[in-house]
Amino acid sequence: MIDLRSDTVTRPTDAMRAAMAAAEVGDDVYGEDPTVRALEERVAGLFGHEAALFTPTGSLANVLAVAAVVAPGQEVLCEARAHVARAELGAHGAVSGLTMRTWSHPRGQVDLAAVGELFAPDLGPYFVQTAALSVENTHNFAGGAVLPIADLHDVRDFADDHGIKVHLDGARIWNAHVATGVPLADYGAVADVMAVCLSKGLGAPAGSLLLGAQAVVEEARVRRKRLGAGMRQVGILAAAGLHALDHHVERLADDHTHARLLAEAVGTDPAGVDTNIVAFDVADAPGFVARAREAGVLVGAVGARTIRLVTHLDVGRADAEQAAQVLAGLA
Amino acid sequence: MIDLRSDTVTRPTDAMRAAMAAAEVGDDVYGEDPTVRALEERVAGLFGHEAALFTPTGSLANVLAVAAVVAPGQEVLCEARAHVARAELGAHGAVSGLTMRTWSHPRGQVDLAAVGELFAPDLGPYFVQTAALSVENTHNFAGGAVLPIADLHDVRDFADDHGIKVHLDGARIWNAHVATGVPLADYGAVADVMAVCLSKGLGAPAGSLLLGAQAVVEEARVRRKRLGAGMRQVGILAAAGLHALDHHVERLADDHTHARLLAEAVGTDPAGVDTNIVAFDVADAPGFVARAREAGVLVGAVGARTIRLVTHLDVGRADAEQAAQVLAGLA
Amino acid sequence: MIDLRSDTVTRPTDAMRAAMAAAEVGDDVYGEDPTVRALEERVAGLFGHEAALFTPTGSLANVLAVAAVVAPGQEVLCEARAHVARAELGAHGAVSGLTMRTWSHPRGQVDLAAVGELFAPDLGPYFVQTAALSVENTHNFAGGAVLPIADLHDVRDFADDHGIKVHLDGARIWNAHVATGVPLADYGAVADVMAVCLSKGLGAPAGSLLLGAQAVVEEARVRRKRLGAGMRQVGILAAAGLHALDHHVERLADDHTHARLLAEAVGTDPAGVDTNIVAFDVADAPGFVARAREAGVLVGAVGARTIRLVTHLDVGRADAEQAAQVLAGLA
Amino acid sequence: MIDLRSDTVTRPTDAMRAAMAAAEVGDDVYGEDPTVRALEERVAGLFGHEAALFTPTGSLANVLAVAAVVAPGQEVLCEARAHVARAELGAHGAVSGLTMRTWSHPRGQVDLAAVGELFAPDLGPYFVQTAALSVENTHNFAGGAVLPIADLHDVRDFADDHGIKVHLDGARIWNAHVATGVPLADYGAVADVMAVCLSKGLGAPAGSLLLGAQAVVEEARVRRKRLGAGMRQVGILAAAGLHALDHHVERLADDHTHARLLAEAVGTDPAGVDTNIVAFDVADAPGFVARAREAGVLVGAVGARTIRLVTHLDVGRADAEQAAQVLAGLA
Repeated sequence: MIDLRSDTVTRPTDAMRAAMAAAEVGDDVYGEDPTVRALEERVAGLFGHEAALFTPTGSLANVLAVAAVVAPGQEVLCEARAHVARAELGAHGAVSGLTMRTWSHPRGQVDLAAVGELFAPDLGPYFVQTAALSVENTHNFAGGAVLPIADLHDVRDFADDHGIKVHLDGARIWNAHVATGVPLADYGAVADVMAVCLSKGLGAPAGSLLLGAQAVVEEARVRRKRLGAGMRQVGILAAAGLHALDHHVERLADDHTHARLLAEAVGTDPAGVDTNIVAFDVADAPGFVARAREAGVLVGAVGARTIRLVTHLDVGRADAEQAAQVLAGLA
Repeated sequence: MIDLRSDTVTRPTDAMRAAMAAAEVGDDVYGEDPTVRALEERVAGLFGHEAALFTPTGSLANVLAVAAVVAPGQEVLCEARAHVARAELGAHGAVSGLTMRTWSHPRGQVDLAAVGELFAPDLGPYFVQTAALSVENTHNFAGGAVLPIADLHDVRDFADDHGIKVHLDGARIWNAHVATGVPLADYGAVADVMAVCLSKGLGAPAGSLLLGAQAVVEEARVRRKRLGAGMRQVGILAAAGLHALDHHVERLADDHTHARLLAEAVGTDPAGVDTNIVAFDVADAPGFVARAREAGVLVGAVGARTIRLVTHLDVGRADAEQAAQVLAGLA
Repeated sequence: MIDLRSDTVTRPTDAMRAAMAAAEVGDDVYGEDPTVRALEERVAGLFGHEAALFTPTGSLANVLAVAAVVAPGQEVLCEARAHVARAELGAHGAVSGLTMRTWSHPRGQVDLAAVGELFAPDLGPYFVQTAALSVENTHNFAGGAVLPIADLHDVRDFADDHGIKVHLDGARIWNAHVATGVPLADYGAVADVMAVCLSKGLGAPAGSLLLGAQAVVEEARVRRKRLGAGMRQVGILAAAGLHALDHHVERLADDHTHARLLAEAVGTDPAGVDTNIVAFDVADAPGFVARAREAGVLVGAVGARTIRLVTHLDVGRADAEQAAQVLAGLA
Repeated sequence: MIDLRSDTVTRPTDAMRAAMAAAEVGDDVYGEDPTVRALEERVAGLFGHEAALFTPTGSLANVLAVAAVVAPGQEVLCEARAHVARAELGAHGAVSGLTMRTWSHPRGQVDLAAVGELFAPDLGPYFVQTAALSVENTHNFAGGAVLPIADLHDVRDFADDHGIKVHLDGARIWNAHVATGVPLADYGAVADVMAVCLSKGLGAPAGSLLLGAQAVVEEARVRRKRLGAGMRQVGILAAAGLHALDHHVERLADDHTHARLLAEAVGTDPAGVDTNIVAFDVADAPGFVARAREAGVLVGAVGARTIRLVTHLDVGRADAEQAAQVLAGLA
């Protein structure tokens, strides 16, 4: 089986396993796991943020990050297919008690004119007030689209002009970095709070980080424990993250090449494939998923008519070519 | 002072006060207030719904109604300036734990193409699923715009086709009814759950009702108590509602006439004024509010540059004409 | 029917109805209802608190008051049968997100030794920290028992010594005041936040007030709106409260006399009846309720084997004597 | 440093690290991690439950387990120092929206007479209803006390008689099993839902399991994802759990021996030390903690005057003897 459902399906390499097995660990609830600390400091540094917090999942990093800048009775604005809106099971409402309003863009881009229309100033305690703008780079459900750094600078300016915060869902910011050459710190500079993930393109078995100011991270640490995610000797997982940072960032370029190859195969313009995700419409997404599976390729449905292919560490050149052949036949 | 801030500012008439003073009452927490029961049955009947629940406010009727059809982890779709999204202080997230996504329309109308793009089917427990579509008629922050009944039929069809529910925020459904002649029951027929308000155009001091199936209302009754809104001899307020239904519905036509008169005065096309609300943009909304107040007219800001005028029971013809003169001078 | 289920069942008198009908009102969401303001100022003054907030129910006043001094991740301690624990449908958890631990006392009294054992200091963010102590006076489910003012002073001292707040559920504080002669302000002085009710012994159709510091009340005002309880011309109800304060406080002594009369009839020691509530155990509470109803007396079950009788404004001397005869026969 | 603060501080052994490094893994969000599945099936089987769910922490296992049997508006009863009440940061209120009431017992035991007094039957939607009884075995903050199996049978009977559920916090059930010889399945049989932990006495770096009926586990799986705890190739951690079950259960007897040795040293009756925890009172707990640290022994304060010592995998006989000498000098 060639698994193109998600870049979350990667299995740790032998070298990554060795790094985990050798990790120096401690009780992270007490702040005593040196490997977790090293990872938090390293990733905060990469993005120019003051501090970082390890979380078991990207969803939790987003939930804690957004809650750090949006209170109950306030709202966050985001694109309609953002991961925070579509794929976190409503935790921002159910757990954090905040609300969202959305604009729609076919490629998940920021539409500042639409944002300007949505923006709700503080008009006193009768109205919900906009507290933050959330952007996702790369944008998962918009086919891994990159948000241009110039647009992110405009987002930063808009936020500053309007007195609100910026949340960056950077689960796949590594892909944006490799695809564009924009330094990680430049992405970090546009966000008040952000989340980055180690278990998607980077291939760690689990783990994400929330980044922000020291005070934000300290409060998020308490909320993380309340949500039942304060693990103990979790340096085992952090070691995988450190290994991934050393070895799995630059190679994302291969995933991008493979994705364009697949795009061509299914008749989608490869110029529209910025990174490692290919989204395309079919008549019947569940049916397509089933037929691909029979032909040895696992793909995902992210809508009634939308198929998503994701390349990753466990899909080599030969796998990509074989999958392309299979999917070309089905598409 | 001529108060055009909202139709919520009306004071009860002498006749309404007499009706309240004479109301037969009981302990409504025990279901024993005959006036509340009469009101609930009458309003349910007007809209062809099985049952109704009296609530202290329109916000609570909406919160309970939406929560009746959308669970945590599910979402409701609505227009971006809907009252449920903008003016209920985030209760749908903070209290009910659900999420929203939005489309935008300059006149608050339903855009089924946009809704179709937003709609999220049940793709298993990784995604937030759309459970309901919420529409507001008339649409408060879109200048009291009426949603055409044909569009509401399309909403009903869309919902049925996609297996979701319809919530109708009918706080000002009375204005839509009077403006269009569409029977109340026709509006009721498009909604699984709806809210109607007695303390806006109808002039009761307080009170709204949630309408829906018997089981929905029974569950909402328990939630109402949990939210601290299970009042006792509240037939006092229900009597005002019954009086308003008898005496204050047809006269809404006057409010609509007055609103068009004001629109003309501030240079807004009266053809765009469907009911009793006039919204128009100025350079500086808070400044405009202050200057109008000095000139004896109270108006509201519902955005950084948007002024809202609302006509109602306590604004007679002469008041409307005087306000028009004042505002024409300022606009 | 003689209704002894609760003092919430009283119907407004003709004089109270006249007061409501004549009330000067305004839009209280905008802070413009003069009767509500007068009531809030008067009640705050009676108890020596800075400010007050009108709420539709006593439950909401308690929910907002406790939430003002206890945050999520913190706890409030209370007696196990306190109204906040037993009769507010879990709103303190479901809406406010806080937790409780309880001590038990057969007469609902404060047991400071038990409280001392329960008290949890701030030991860092691994533990739930005690933020407040809640006491109820008179104690509803402990048969309307009064908490001696000396004990309340000890509660105040305990709270000050331990750096926590005191919440006083004073739904029936009027009964305690009349039964003991302790001034209302003395009760007010022991509490950081408190709730008092107008629709129990005082006979108003609905309404309670939260009392506390100005900042607490302002924040509670916003939360009240989020919970859908920001009513408009609610001076109608506030007028009933003002009338009750003028006319229905001192007469509570009659209710207390009637309660002792009923206690004697059902074989309970009248010395244990401090105010207007008689609680006693029977073999089968639901069965007893049914038989009393057949004999023309409505009583309530507040446990599988516990019956509660409550005297009030609508139970005169003759009613009390007749009910005593009926219940003596059944008990 | 000899670390007696908690049995959560253990570091994985070399053999456990090797097991993690060799683990076969998959994407557990898709239910495809064979090691997680194996662990879930094995632990469910050990306790005779239908199904199990891996969670990152014991707190989350408890939160999901209690929420599976107690809804908002319902309550769970537990001992006042239970971990669910004291050490989960209020998640049962803040996240699950339920409430608790408590009884107190110096050794954390079940007091069925007290439970009977607390128990609240379903008296209709005015009252909070008791939905479950939660017991903790061994009881952490009561010094690792074992709950006798006979008492647990009485709990089961009480629950059945009253139509409520039993939650067993079995974070340290392995210690109870080893101390008493009671089979794990006997403990499992008394609980509708339970939580067991791998990262306390068993020495895994992280991980707990919730056990219950298939439907309960399926719903908890969705909630787990909503709370941001749906990890991917988490078989890495599950492998540590499987290794611990093979190698670290029986050796808990050594921890118990060491604990009694420490108890004797600090002047506490070793007969009161059932398992691996020693709790004792001092004049000033924070001061004691500081002095012990200076002398090379880490101990914990779990109250203003209560010290807790916990023995575990990383404290050998020699360590225990040295710590005993140090603490004897301080106590």
